[in-house]
Amino acid sequence: MISRADAAALDAADPLASFRDRFVLPEGLVYLDGNSLGALPKGAAERMVEVVSREWGAGLIRSWNDAGWIDLPRRVGDKIARLVGGEPGEVVCTDSTSVNLWKVLAAALSLRPERRTVLSEEGNFPTDLYVAEGLARLLGQGHRLRLVPKGELLTSLDADVAALLLTHVDYRTGVRHDMERLTRAAHEAGAIAIWDLAHSAGAMPVDLRAAGADLAVGCGYKYLCGGPGAPAFLWVPKRLQDSFVQPLSGWLGHAEPFAFERVYRPAEGVGRFLCGTPPILSMSSLDAALDVILEADLAIVRAKSEALTSFFIEAVEQECGDAVRLVSPRVPSLRGSQVSFTHPDAYAVMRALIERSVVGDFRAPDVLRFGFAPLYVGFVDAWDAAKALADVLSSHAHERPELRRRAAVT
Amino acid sequence: MISRADAAALDAADPLASFRDRFVLPEGLVYLDGNSLGALPKGAAERMVEVVSREWGAGLIRSWNDAGWIDLPRRVGDKIARLVGGEPGEVVCTDSTSVNLWKVLAAALSLRPERRTVLSEEGNFPTDLYVAEGLARLLGQGHRLRLVPKGELLTSLDADVAALLLTHVDYRTGVRHDMERLTRAAHEAGAIAIWDLAHSAGAMPVDLRAAGADLAVGCGYKYLCGGPGAPAFLWVPKRLQDSFVQPLSGWLGHAEPFAFERVYRPAEGVGRFLCGTPPILSMSSLDAALDVILEADLAIVRAKSEALTSFFIEAVEQECGDAVRLVSPRVPSLRGSQVSFTHPDAYAVMRALIERSVVGDFRAPDVLRFGFAPLYVGFVDAWDAAKALADVLSSHAHERPELRRRAAVT
Repeated sequence: MISRADAAALDAADPLASFRDRFVLPEGLVYLDGNSLGALPKGAAERMVEVVSREWGAGLIRSWNDAGWIDLPRRVGDKIARLVGGEPGEVVCTDSTSVNLWKVLAAALSLRPERRTVLSEEGNFPTDLYVAEGLARLLGQGHRLRLVPKGELLTSLDADVAALLLTHVDYRTGVRHDMERLTRAAHEAGAIAIWDLAHSAGAMPVDLRAAGADLAVGCGYKYLCGGPGAPAFLWVPKRLQDSFVQPLSGWLGHAEPFAFERVYRPAEGVGRFLCGTPPILSMSSLDAALDVILEADLAIVRAKSEALTSFFIEAVEQECGDAVRLVSPRVPSLRGSQVSFTHPDAYAVMRALIERSVVGDFRAPDVLRFGFAPLYVGFVDAWDAAKALADVLSSHAHERPELRRRAAVT
Repeated sequence: MISRADAAALDAADPLASFRDRFVLPEGLVYLDGNSLGALPKGAAERMVEVVSREWGAGLIRSWNDAGWIDLPRRVGDKIARLVGGEPGEVVCTDSTSVNLWKVLAAALSLRPERRTVLSEEGNFPTDLYVAEGLARLLGQGHRLRLVPKGELLTSLDADVAALLLTHVDYRTGVRHDMERLTRAAHEAGAIAIWDLAHSAGAMPVDLRAAGADLAVGCGYKYLCGGPGAPAFLWVPKRLQDSFVQPLSGWLGHAEPFAFERVYRPAEGVGRFLCGTPPILSMSSLDAALDVILEADLAIVRAKSEALTSFFIEAVEQECGDAVRLVSPRVPSLRGSQVSFTHPDAYAVMRALIERSVVGDFRAPDVLRFGFAPLYVGFVDAWDAAKALADVLSSHAHERPELRRRAAVT
């Protein structure tokens, strides 16, 4: 049997404990949704005041040069590169994950002009599928998105697969793919391997280069804590950067935006993946957040993540019995930094938990999802969440009809 | 002869004078670059603190519902609709102008599948041209971007033109197109009329519906004062909204994003033009800025804009003689809210002006550009700018070699 005292002892021995104070966390709240929206780094809040009043208010247009706004997508990109195994000049921060996926998928298809299949898995995050679907429809050349269960990915790699498009960590179950193995298999089949790092970047060591990956995208507002809707990123290794012109050719991806030339001439390197003018306020927040994230050793972050999620599974199973069912892998190395359970009334259960100041989220149709951002979540949080869940279930608190009324965002 | 006293008298009679205090403007600075980056509304600065600390910091993920983040693109869109002659539900705020242009241009081409020409003008803002070029290249179906001088647009509308793609006000010269006349001509030729309102929305009355326009995009950070790189907008009239599926099909454009369906099902109405998760911090700033802009009567804004730009032309020509040459229309109704002059050494002249706290900008190859945002620029500003320009030119201040060294952003 484990107890709250065990949790407190684990927190006391946590080498990352001091990071919690770098974030704003409401008193009394157990926040287990950092995989959906990362908490506010105090440094980001300070930076926003600075960017708004000094850079925009006082500097005005001059800040494009004086505050270095023009280089911000590349500077932030270089910071992210350190988290995902990229080199300087291989990552830019820009647009949304969806828009970036569009760019890299189009690029991948242009590298395999004779092939027509984009292979992905049924459980991939929908926007990845919708983007592939939209691109195939626009191209009108018979491209198709083929979706198979996780277990059939390897056997589905055939000579028509142009791109294998996968999310590293499953948004619902937290299952983590073996990036290296799948990438190698994709290459053996002659396909391009594209990875979506939305649920892994910042939460664990990721080494795109070592895995041999070809292209990647990721999200700025989950484990990177850039703020709601923070701009996303994309990674294109140097070896591929000049192999294609990405289709969303906007002025900031031009070799000389301020020459105002009539014909598009792509910038050298990853800069050609920029398109329009980036949202500087949102990107500055992400920039400041990354300074905090980069102070931590990702190996230690990962060790804590595995310990935290294991402790939470143990606590839930001890306190709730079989009222909920684990759908995340029990083996720590096979999962991301989240734990998911199913319950037939999961939406109402999560609402009841939130009423008790434990914030996770619901994912249709029946998943209770709990994210563990190791920089600001501790073992006592995990314990308290498990106890609150047990309390909801044993008291049938979730059976109040009003808790079943769905909000716009679930 | 006009004088600074005349300017002061005009400011004293200005019905919009009280708006100036709603903006942060550095003491002693004459800011004539609001057509590149609008000044900071005090309300936007206050709103950012609120959004960062209360909505993000304290509300965390709950703010998607509780603070209404999920509806923000449509709420901001409805505000913008009031400035451009759209109805509620016809505008969304999302992505960049470039990305939005991609969506509406792809939509337009899908409505004219048998045609292959996108017609625009040589002097259109480059990103508009680059986007059309990128889309044509990706489609690989023989589409071409045809560029002609302004004067040849009407005679170039032939049976192959799928879309006429124009910026309402020319970013360099300030020439304002007759939107209604060109749209009617496009329709007579069977083409779709797409308008980029980057240099007109918020600076003058725009009535897309009355002009019969088909599709439009615009910028959030110029006259709308949303902050650096604020998200852009697009307008799709109700009559066309369900005629096409735009290709950048991302999850937030889905009919039910939180159903996490495997196949894309576009949202009803203009919502299908959303793609990924929007940058809430940057969009909130724009939202607050719009509350200020919407308090002003655009007819009065336009009257002041015409008077201001006319006064500036008169002052420059009086004080500088023929050292600079006007390239904006002399007839007020034919121009936007900016005045441009050419000078062979324009870059260095602008640098010298900025040293004297008069901020306009340079546009390659030889344009001195001065934007007049009527809500916070006055007649004394115009006078002082003209005097400073005369001082630079008569003292040859711009001939210092270091002023010719180009910065990244010009």
